[in-house]
Amino acid sequence: MRSPGSGVSTVLSAELSFIAALRAFATHPAARGLGDDVALIETDGARLIITQDTLVEAVHYRPDDPPESVAWKLVAVNISDMAAKGGAPRYAMLSFMLGDDLVWEARFAAGLGDALAFYDVALIGGDTVSGKGRTLSLTLIGEARGTVPGRGGAQVGDALYVSGTIGDSGAGLATLRADPAAEGSLVNAYQRPMPHLAAGQALAPVVSAMMDVSDGLLIDARRIAGASGLAAMIDLDAIPLSAAYRALYGDSREARLRAACAGDDYQLLFTCTLPLPALAIPVTRIGRMIRGDGVQLSDRDGSVPLPETLGWLHGLP
Amino acid sequence: MRSPGSGVSTVLSAELSFIAALRAFATHPAARGLGDDVALIETDGARLIITQDTLVEAVHYRPDDPPESVAWKLVAVNISDMAAKGGAPRYAMLSFMLGDDLVWEARFAAGLGDALAFYDVALIGGDTVSGKGRTLSLTLIGEARGTVPGRGGAQVGDALYVSGTIGDSGAGLATLRADPAAEGSLVNAYQRPMPHLAAGQALAPVVSAMMDVSDGLLIDARRIAGASGLAAMIDLDAIPLSAAYRALYGDSREARLRAACAGDDYQLLFTCTLPLPALAIPVTRIGRMIRGDGVQLSDRDGSVPLPETLGWLHGLP
Repeated sequence: MRSPGSGVSTVLSAELSFIAALRAFATHPAARGLGDDVALIETDGARLIITQDTLVEAVHYRPDDPPESVAWKLVAVNISDMAAKGGAPRYAMLSFMLGDDLVWEARFAAGLGDALAFYDVALIGGDTVSGKGRTLSLTLIGEARGTVPGRGGAQVGDALYVSGTIGDSGAGLATLRADPAAEGSLVNAYQRPMPHLAAGQALAPVVSAMMDVSDGLLIDARRIAGASGLAAMIDLDAIPLSAAYRALYGDSREARLRAACAGDDYQLLFTCTLPLPALAIPVTRIGRMIRGDGVQLSDRDGSVPLPETLGWLHGLP
Repeated sequence: MRSPGSGVSTVLSAELSFIAALRAFATHPAARGLGDDVALIETDGARLIITQDTLVEAVHYRPDDPPESVAWKLVAVNISDMAAKGGAPRYAMLSFMLGDDLVWEARFAAGLGDALAFYDVALIGGDTVSGKGRTLSLTLIGEARGTVPGRGGAQVGDALYVSGTIGDSGAGLATLRADPAAEGSLVNAYQRPMPHLAAGQALAPVVSAMMDVSDGLLIDARRIAGASGLAAMIDLDAIPLSAAYRALYGDSREARLRAACAGDDYQLLFTCTLPLPALAIPVTRIGRMIRGDGVQLSDRDGSVPLPETLGWLHGLP
């Protein structure tokens, strides 16, 4: 664990207590006790999947979000990438910006320990820095299991599927903006997303392309289409909405478009021709891959013009 | 490469041009064309050394520093950790905070390409985020070659060595503060540190402990001492100073203490009893390991009280 350049006074306060909190659960040998500048992994010949996602305060999370939830989300957004590649997460490196709120940091460290334990991931290193405004970055290292799906393998005629429901996280953020004390499944979807690791591992061998939905269903579908040299034809009516989402926004074309562009869903988006394996989560066929480029939308009333913005800008007001 | 949640307008501007600039040199197969959310490494059974260092604008570098130098430094501070572990750097993941200065970003990307090429490191992924104030993080992955020295292996009687000269970078920062247009070897030491990769690889099999000097010679020597359960006895007169440093600050006890606490040196600090291998850089014996704890300082006039702050606070005024 690399610490910020520090005088004695700094060392004896925030930084040491934060690193001590991490050290309590960073017990894997690869971590070298968080007492070195590096981590050391024995690979045993594995192919490693590496992903790195960063959360910026007031951009990717609300300053008022519980620190445990911020820690959860930092882990989950990386686990979501691992899930979409069918990988088994193993190790994490944390880059953490120390603020001046010891309670926040202690709660974050505890939440990080819980989230990593939930996914059986070992914290093996990273660094802490000082700065204004929190920027938190996690590098997640996992082992590939057989095929690692990309974005670019979709074929003409492949069905396009998405897991779970879409739009809940965006609705949760809107709910929190209106009422910072709000709770419920939509707020949970925003603060504590649950990526589908087991489903991703089960799907990886049979899909032709797969990624997680992080920036918005339409923008991410366009990425699969673009990487595959095809177009994605999507039935707006087929996009799965939760009961809570419908209760808030209804079921209109506008409500569905809002969900399809909302982002932060951390669902699996994939193309496939083969029969799907048994999965513990629902998946919905929302369209198919055709010749062309970009995304084409339709619903029961015919063709639907694309919204100007296909994905969510992670900027908070 | 994971992009920030983005609408079309954002995608078509800063972000896409930055990622395109990276893609021009991120040609290693593990990068998957920077067109996926993950990187994929074939390990062939190697033991991997992972390190992660973060630079924060106005904390770890000056906003006026040339963007190419910031890119160089981001790579070099990670290479320095790899050097101290005797590893061979292979892959890098970049976490980059996009600002609104396209020229800065293009120059940074070009500098990053040059720095990675210099060390034969492949950029394989990362993410870009938006936010206020730049925070730049690099995860460097390398292969271990035989023994990976830790901080904790020093034995009573081991000699303590440091490579190169100490204090130049801190003097360079002070010079730039006084004159932002300053140039020369001290400024170079601050903006474009040259970690000693080959020397680290040559030393790794024979040292009992090794780390790089990043936060200050005394604070880092204390870390080796602490991890080894010993004290480091250091001869202040033996600390190697450059001619440029002496020209600026002289050779007094005060000048030597200033160098020993300055930080950002990126030299190798190690303990050893064995004969040293042939090295292309100078190394200097500055002390030895004894029973006790902490750092004990002396010079030709006797015992030297420890300064209150052993390392450099990376805060800029």
